[in-house]
Amino acid sequence: MEKIQLLEFFKIINGETWLVEDERDNMKLYYRVKEVLSSKKSPFQHVNIIDSYDFGRCLVLDGVMQTTELDGYIYNEMISHIPVVTHQNPKKVLIIGGGDCGVANELSKYKELESVDMVEIDKVVVDECVDKLTMISGNAPNDERINFLFEDGIKFVKDKEKCYDVAIVDSSDPVGPAEVLFSEEFYVDLKKSLKDDGIMVCQSQSPIFHKEVLKRTRDILKKHFPIVRTYKAVVPSYPGGMWSFTLASFKYDPLNANLERLVKNTKYINKDIFKSCFSLPNFMKEYLDIE
Amino acid sequence: MEKIQLLEFFKIINGETWLVEDERDNMKLYYRVKEVLSSKKSPFQHVNIIDSYDFGRCLVLDGVMQTTELDGYIYNEMISHIPVVTHQNPKKVLIIGGGDCGVANELSKYKELESVDMVEIDKVVVDECVDKLTMISGNAPNDERINFLFEDGIKFVKDKEKCYDVAIVDSSDPVGPAEVLFSEEFYVDLKKSLKDDGIMVCQSQSPIFHKEVLKRTRDILKKHFPIVRTYKAVVPSYPGGMWSFTLASFKYDPLNANLERLVKNTKYINKDIFKSCFSLPNFMKEYLDIE
Repeated sequence: MEKIQLLEFFKIINGETWLVEDERDNMKLYYRVKEVLSSKKSPFQHVNIIDSYDFGRCLVLDGVMQTTELDGYIYNEMISHIPVVTHQNPKKVLIIGGGDCGVANELSKYKELESVDMVEIDKVVVDECVDKLTMISGNAPNDERINFLFEDGIKFVKDKEKCYDVAIVDSSDPVGPAEVLFSEEFYVDLKKSLKDDGIMVCQSQSPIFHKEVLKRTRDILKKHFPIVRTYKAVVPSYPGGMWSFTLASFKYDPLNANLERLVKNTKYINKDIFKSCFSLPNFMKEYLDIE
Repeated sequence: MEKIQLLEFFKIINGETWLVEDERDNMKLYYRVKEVLSSKKSPFQHVNIIDSYDFGRCLVLDGVMQTTELDGYIYNEMISHIPVVTHQNPKKVLIIGGGDCGVANELSKYKELESVDMVEIDKVVVDECVDKLTMISGNAPNDERINFLFEDGIKFVKDKEKCYDVAIVDSSDPVGPAEVLFSEEFYVDLKKSLKDDGIMVCQSQSPIFHKEVLKRTRDILKKHFPIVRTYKAVVPSYPGGMWSFTLASFKYDPLNANLERLVKNTKYINKDIFKSCFSLPNFMKEYLDIE
């Protein structure tokens, strides 16, 4: 077997390998690693698949945990099922990002969808996750309705008009390449790519540690859509545990969704979770100016 | 000013002080510290109050974060308001543990309570939190209805019969001294201390990392109480973010609570959160055998 060269974000302590996340100013996280399964340098980033003790297999980009076997399904289910069930007749879906293929895998559970365009800039991430993170990528690579497009999502949406029923922005953190995915210009282009009754959703970061990102995202979307709903989920492997998503819609309101359309083969979401994820704590309502 | 001797769980890295939590096998957490405000050795443990960058002021026991300015109110509100509002006429409340006084502070918001017995084994923790963690201990030290009893909670409940309307077990993790607070014997004693329409609640650990603790706690309580409800909250500074609580009751069901009794001066809980915290994800329902 080829010996894998460990990058600087792995440390050996007493003969054990640890992944060290220390890009934050005020917190460092050490994860004990069973095995570094692969290490690739793509044109965009370092791509590692590791097997960890607490979180199982994980995708690590430039030394930062992105999605894990333990809890990746929570994020992927919450960003996928909510908009697809809210829309009453979705046929065409767009995913921006989503390289781990977890969102595509959730969408593949909906028979009524005709096509899913998944626009991910980094083919190496997709190839690695399809090969080694099958518990997350699941059925996505076998579903012929899913079109894998290895392109820049920002450029991709620029010339699309009224193409999609649902658009899902599954971005990484708003630093470096993903920063523009949080810009007003991008949301305006994305809005234009939606049909007249379309819905878009994005992850809007931690309601605790990134209040300003959530608030700005919500404020921008409120300028452009009549219905905007922020919802929450717990993602244990993300700092702060609580995570936010913001949905924007021309016509359909998730608070009135027909929950009979929600598929049953999920690990986190169910009808009660769908309804209750829109209940926000007082401290969030306060800074988001929600009554 | 007296120079504080740093214990072994503090590390100096490039001139900065970090609190290192490395008692877990598979994960280490480093928190950047602005200042170690105090360091006391009680008969039971090392008690530190620190000021941290991300979490504000924190209580640290034997090197492990217990409660923080950033999110301590979430845990304290969820373990206090749910049982007190569920009970339709609470007068006498028992707290086991709760040394940071956060639970006592939440209870002090209810005018209808006549007395709160707070049984905490470690007086040093209470003194330190009343002195330096006032954003958590709040009004508790000034509320004459609260009786601070520095005793062993296990022994305290042994001879109590039908004394309390509500009992709240605010324990630390089930290792070392707090382990017995998760035993069937203790829950049976606690049950005996409740009036005929009494309610008890305990924190039942992470639904992700300590499934077996939650399941065992729930199973024990189901043997002894007709109504048992598990609920969830997000506590960002706890590993895994999601936290569970289990409520056991002779008569009152939180699903039918009169939410008009919920006080307004809270930062996390509100009527929607009260109702929605009982919605559990599929993976929890599965291992807890909930339909």
